[in-house]
Order: sequence, then structure tokens, then C-alpha cells
Amino acid sequence: MNDSAAANIGVIGLAVMGSNLARNLASREGNVVAVHNRTHARTEELVAAHPEAGFIAAKTIDDFVAALARPRTAIIMVQAGAGTDAVIDQLAERFEPGDIIVDGGNAHFRDTIAREQRIALTGIHFVGVGISGGEEGALRGPSIMPGGSAESYRTLGPILSSIAAVAEGEPCVTHVGTDGAGHFVKMIHNGIEYADMQLIGEAYDLLRTVGGLEPDDIADVFAQWNRGPLESYLIEITAEILRHTDPATGRPFVDVVLDQAGSKGTGVWTVQTALDLGVPVGGIAEAVFARSVSAKPEQRAAIRRIRSSRPEVQQADASFVEAVAKALFASKLVAYAQGFDAVVAGAEKYGWNIHQDEIARIWRGGCIIRARFLSHVTEAYAQNPDITTLLEAPYFAQAVAEGEDSWRRVVATAAHSGVPVPGFGSALSYYDSLGADRLPAALVQAQRDFFGAHTYRRTDRDGTFHTLWSADQSETKLRGTAG
Amino acid sequence: MNDSAAANIGVIGLAVMGSNLARNLASREGNVVAVHNRTHARTEELVAAHPEAGFIAAKTIDDFVAALARPRTAIIMVQAGAGTDAVIDQLAERFEPGDIIVDGGNAHFRDTIAREQRIALTGIHFVGVGISGGEEGALRGPSIMPGGSAESYRTLGPILSSIAAVAEGEPCVTHVGTDGAGHFVKMIHNGIEYADMQLIGEAYDLLRTVGGLEPDDIADVFAQWNRGPLESYLIEITAEILRHTDPATGRPFVDVVLDQAGSKGTGVWTVQTALDLGVPVGGIAEAVFARSVSAKPEQRAAIRRIRSSRPEVQQADASFVEAVAKALFASKLVAYAQGFDAVVAGAEKYGWNIHQDEIARIWRGGCIIRARFLSHVTEAYAQNPDITTLLEAPYFAQAVAEGEDSWRRVVATAAHSGVPVPGFGSALSYYDSLGADRLPAALVQAQRDFFGAHTYRRTDRDGTFHTLWSADQSETKLRGTAG
Repeated sequence: MNDSAAANIGVIGLAVMGSNLARNLASREGNVVAVHNRTHARTEELVAAHPEAGFIAAKTIDDFVAALARPRTAIIMVQAGAGTDAVIDQLAERFEPGDIIVDGGNAHFRDTIAREQRIALTGIHFVGVGISGGEEGALRGPSIMPGGSAESYRTLGPILSSIAAVAEGEPCVTHVGTDGAGHFVKMIHNGIEYADMQLIGEAYDLLRTVGGLEPDDIADVFAQWNRGPLESYLIEITAEILRHTDPATGRPFVDVVLDQAGSKGTGVWTVQTALDLGVPVGGIAEAVFARSVSAKPEQRAAIRRIRSSRPEVQQADASFVEAVAKALFASKLVAYAQGFDAVVAGAEKYGWNIHQDEIARIWRGGCIIRARFLSHVTEAYAQNPDITTLLEAPYFAQAVAEGEDSWRRVVATAAHSGVPVPGFGSALSYYDSLGADRLPAALVQAQRDFFGAHTYRRTDRDGTFHTLWSADQSETKLRGTAG
Repeated sequence: MNDSAAANIGVIGLAVMGSNLARNLASREGNVVAVHNRTHARTEELVAAHPEAGFIAAKTIDDFVAALARPRTAIIMVQAGAGTDAVIDQLAERFEPGDIIVDGGNAHFRDTIAREQRIALTGIHFVGVGISGGEEGALRGPSIMPGGSAESYRTLGPILSSIAAVAEGEPCVTHVGTDGAGHFVKMIHNGIEYADMQLIGEAYDLLRTVGGLEPDDIADVFAQWNRGPLESYLIEITAEILRHTDPATGRPFVDVVLDQAGSKGTGVWTVQTALDLGVPVGGIAEAVFARSVSAKPEQRAAIRRIRSSRPEVQQADASFVEAVAKALFASKLVAYAQGFDAVVAGAEKYGWNIHQDEIARIWRGGCIIRARFLSHVTEAYAQNPDITTLLEAPYFAQAVAEGEDSWRRVVATAAHSGVPVPGFGSALSYYDSLGADRLPAALVQAQRDFFGAHTYRRTDRDGTFHTLWSADQSETKLRGTAG
């Protein structure tokens, strides 16, 4: 069989993402793509629908392996979970040292680390690859975040570069780091995506509920924003959605959609991971929680019944629209700053040599959070990789300074009006916490010392101290005691 | 040796919490307490310092086991982690079916579930018990949250009742539920404690930074609050802390404490668990994040340097102080409502028959979050165990309605003044989200359908739908597809 091996890459799992990725691969010069699906009918369907792709259809896993030229390279595109392990094992039994198994699904990066360790014993490369861009991205060019060994990237890099999105002439792919680094960064990407979407939702809500604008007007606002610093895919599609009229009722489409948002888990993972890393990601957490609040219809009905006040519509003037834009931009910066902090902390904990400027670079195209302002993120980290937070980079510091009054006005207006702004509000409090001369954390630490003898440090002397609160309130200095 | 067995209870691990709990046990009629510590000197020290306790000092683990009357009951009070498993194994090797091993440390409830399953095979009972109240509580009467089997509670219940705090004549202990239920509820208790402390910190910061009050004045305010609906241990000790003068400098104590708050992990666990359960706990999450922000001195220094504005001190009038009190109470209600939602969701997921009214009852005394208003929580759940959220119970609904304007004013003032209020702000947005007629979650779900074909539901018809965004924007109805 090996004489007939003609495919330089194979795809297993031909649901929409897998099919589109296979078609994308096949469309690029020099690629011959073997395809396999557990249900063979799906494979036949794909091959029949796309004769131009020149797919090699593999009915069995043995056919699939036999169709691959060495080093064999296979991309698994099945639902994350137990199914992934089954397919990995099938391949690992048949592959040889030097061959490459790629998991292109949304696996948890810790699973990817464990799988890489397990497979590495066989001499086969296991590479977790984050792929963002949805169905369209998979077909026309996604943003691609591969982990795994540098050696595997020598084979894989050119193939992935050929199918990635292109932004300003560069393919949106880089070797993120070893083992689980790719899936880690993809997870953070999704966390940021949650925050970005929530913030856009709050901006829309403010323009509508406080500003009294109709969806069509707000579509105009978003379309205009998409020609400035807010330019991004999510702003662009928001304008399209708000412009869309429901064919069945003639009403604005956004008004017929049930206001309960679902989620698939990567937002939850991001927040849980950031908590483990000690990185505050309030913007992402509030976005995750906002979705879960929305999906509690019984609680919402109960509070709606007893609620005494309703937001009052004010007249939206240009200055309010402008203020919302600035609040959105500043809040978005905070979400990205928090996300990049999580990337830095993850790289340190797991020993990945991640370049933040490269991450921002490969997010400029293909992925859901692609945005003009990511060029400034790349620039900020390229100029100084050691900035402590994105918010101190000159471009961003200036943007926040310019928008600060608007940001405060919008959050205050929301509080008075009864419009929920968990994202805007959390972001502003985060910024004010970082900028505070003194934080009430001093009081919190004193409380901890009072009830739990957790000790404290002082502003004026080194050491760890405890006050004998229930005795004479004298202070003792404890050496070598962790706070 | 067994003829000499005279202790009805034993304590292993004699650091402060273990020593104090052993002394508490020994002080109650009918208890004879065996004590053991890895380093025997510590045991000798405790026994020598407290002859009144009549401890039986056990030098070895064999001595310890021999000293216990049947059914043997031992409480392990060592640092959570690997040490716990070692001690459990030592006891399990020596104990017999029907004996009881109690873990009184802060174990993760999932570890407790796993340990209970493992030990249950031997016929020995393993019981995870949450104990709150710090060192003082351990000595004088903590709030106690035991899990484990109902059978073990028949032996353990009377012993624990004898040492628990008493509130309104009732011991602060109940059989929370099976296996890990006790440690689960203790974890949620700690999560609520994080939120409560953060909210108190924000109230203090507002009174000081916006209101211009000095720590001594604010101590008066808190002392006064402690005579009303806010009455609680944390409010009480805050007044004491704010009243305290640093002996070394003569300055207010709170001003010499470094404003970086530490944490030991149960807050992080609470948020991670709530995320798994799909329960929004923004109040707890923001409190955890506020501590981690405070402990990032480099980031804080960077933003302090570039920050253009500083909060302006206004004059605090009585109405502002009153508004802060109302904002604090309303925000605190939200944190408790979220915590109890997590309890309900955890009970459902893990099959625990938890009575929320009982949980609130045993938190009224002994523990860190003990507070007058917990009686109202008990009342609310006793009257109607099926309320969807604490916020709809009449007492709480009325409190929020009365405080709502103040709450809005305080959050808006904070936004304008640059005082960070992640807790107050998150709580208000949560309340406004629950009360909203429509949430921008509709837009978020539409975005998800646009870029990821995640589908949506409609307000006017059953079913799951997808719009063909990149084609003719027509709508297709998908049957049996999850949203």
C-alpha cells in the first residue's frame, strides 16, 4: 500500500470544521489531502461534492494511514473529549516515529500536555493546534496556533502557513510554544472573545435603552465605528446583525432572538485557568457570568416581577454615542490586557517561550477577535516585551487617558439608568484599582490577621507581622512566616 | 492496650487550630480527648500547658489508636494536601469497620468525595467536616459543617454539637449532606466571606476617599452599622481595626498595613466550582480578583505613574454615609444570593439533600460570616425552599427596593470619583441583569450564530434556528439540535 501513498496531509473527522479545513488544504498548491470519517457516507458526500479538491477518500483508518506519505501528518478534527483519545490511539498504533498527529479541536491545554507526554514515548509527534475563525475561517483562512515540538513544526509550519489567513502580507500562524501552548493561547483567545462580545452587547444596550436608538440606527453607529480604532470583525458583524430584518415578522432580527446566550466551555476554562495563575480577568469572568445569568429564565422572571424601577430612555446625542465608543474601547483594552497577562503567566508556569507580539500578530486575521488595534498590541510588546501591562504602553495609555471621562460618564449613567454593565464596570474598577494610591486591600489583610492570624506586611518596614488582637493589641514580628 | 481505651475522641495535628479544637472538646462534659502530633514535643507542650484538659497524650499513632474507645473517632487537623492522605492511611490501617475518620481541614470537596469512596471500601467512615471561626472559633465554638454518612453522624453529631457555637440557643452544626457536602458548603462559606470582606473594603474606601472621613470616624460609622441590619462579626472587627492605632508610629493602623491582600485558595475554588456549575458569582469572583490585583505592585506602580486623574475628596454628609450603608447591604445580599445559588446547584449535581435554611442557621454563630441577617435567610428558605433566588424573598426584595436609589448613587459616584468598586458594581449589574426586560444576550447569541453557526431560539416560536448569514440571510429551522 505504501507505494501508493500520495497524500502529504490527512484530515480525520469531516463535520463542517473538518470538511472546510480539508477543502482549504486541498485548494493550496502542492497539497494532496487524504480524508476519513467514522461514517464513510460523510466522506463520500464530501468527495462527491468537491471533485476539484482531489481528495483521497479513505474508508478505513488503515486506508487512511496507507494513503499518507512519510512523515505521515494527520489532523484530527473531531469533537474534543473521549472521541479524540480514541482516534489518537488508532493513529498511534499505526504511525511510526517521526510521524505527526495533530489535534485541531478545542482540547483543554492540560489534556494536550498529557497527550503529548504520552505520545512522545512512541517517538511520534503529537501537536495540539488551536484554530480560530469558525466555519468560514476554516475554509478561507483561519488564525492558527500550533503547539508541540519545534521539530514537528518544521514539517507542519509550511502546511499551516499555506492555509492560514493572511494579514498585511503575513500568514496568521506561528509556533506558539511546546506541548499545550497552542491550545492554551487559543483558550485565552476565546476568553477575550467572550469579553469583547459582552462589551459590544453592553454598548448596544446603552445606545438602545438609554439612548433610545433603534437597531437600524445602531447598525449605522457600529458601521461608523468600524471605520475607526474599533475596527474589528465583531463590530462589523454586529452592524450586519442589527441591520438584519427578521423575514418572518418584519421586526428587527435582534428583537426576535431569545435573549439567552449559550457557551461551549472555553470561557469557563479561561477564567478557571486565570484563577489558578493568580491573574485577575474580571472582564472575561463577567462576560461568562453574563451569559449564565441570561440563561436563568426563572430567576429573571422573579426579579422582573418585583422590580420597582425601569430604565428611562433619554435622548441620545452625538456626545453620548461618542462616550459609549470611548468606554467600549477602554473596556476592551482592559480585557485584552488581562488576557495577555494570562498568556504571560501561563508561559511562565508551563515553561513556554511565548512571544506576545507574535500572538497579537497572528490574531490580526482569520480569527473571531481580529481587529485593527492588535497591530498596536504587537507594536507595544515588540517595543518593550517587559511592560507590566498593556495599559502602560504609550498608545493604550493615551487612549485610556483620552477616553477616561467618557468611560466614567457611561458607567455612572448605566448605574443610574438600570442598564447592566458588568463588563464596562468591572473594567473601570480594574483600571481604578491599578491606579489607586492605596487600596482597601490593607483593611482586608488586617481583617485576615484579626480572625485568622494570617499576618501582614507594613508599608514602613520589612518583615511579617501579627497583632495580638484579642490580647493587648501589641505587634509581634514573625520571621520566615509566609503572609 | 484496648482495656485502657478511655478517649471518646482524638485529635491528630496540634497546630493552633488542632490544639484549640482539642481544648474545646476537652472542656465539654463527658469528653476525654486523645491528642497526637507528628512531632511529639508539640503534644507534650500542649498537655503541659493545659493540665485542666485531661488530655491523653499519644506518642505514636499506635498509642493514639489504642487510646480510643470504640467506635474510634479521630479528627485530623493537618494542613490540607498530601499530609492529609498520609494520616488517613495511617488511621485506616489501624481502624476497624464502624470507626470514624474525620478530616477537619480545608480539603477540596472533590478530594473529600474521592477519599470517602476509597475509605468506604474498608467499612470505616470517612467524614469531611468544614470548620469555620478561625483560632478563636476552634477554641470557643466554631460553626461546623459535617458531611459523610448519616450513620457516622449519629456518633459524631453529639460530639460536634457539644463544641459548636450556639446561636439563639441552637448549636451551629447540622448534617449538611453525604460525602463532600460539608467541605463544599464550607468552601462556599469562604467564597461569601471573600465577597463580604471586599464589600466592606469598598465601603471603607468610599467613606475615606470620597467622603473624606478619617479611620477613627469610619470606626464610629461601622460601630453604628453594627447596631442595625448590617450587624455582623466582620463589621464589628472592622470597627476595631479602624479604631486601632499603630503602636510604633502613632498612625492609624490601617495606614501602616501594606495594601496587598493574600489568599489561601478557597475563594479561587468557589469561583472555579461555580463556573463548573454554571452559577454566576460575580461578587465572589471580583473579590478574589481584587486581592490578586492588589498583589501586583509592578503593574500598580506603572499605572499610578501614568494616571492623569486623582479622586476628589467631597464632603461626607450623613446622606452619603447612609447611601453607602444601603449599597453595602444590597451588594452583600447579592453575594449571599449567589453563594446560596451555588449551594443549590452543587446539591443538585452531587446528590446532596442540603437544606438552605439549615445552612444559614448554622452560619449565624461561630463562623467568620456570622451575621444578624442570616436569620432572614433561614426564614426565607424555611417559608419557601423553592424561591429561585434569595433576592425575591420578601424581606430582601424590600431591602433592595429601599436601598436601590442609594446603591445606584454610590456606584455612579465611585465611577466619577475613580474609587474602584468591583464588588458594588458587579452586584448592581447582576441585579439589573436579572431585572432587565431584555438582555443584550440576544445580540451575543446572534453573533454566535453568525460566526459559529451556534444557532438561536426565538421569542415567538419554539425550535432552534440558524440564519444563513453569508448566503441569502434566510432562516432555517433545525430540529433536535442543541443551541
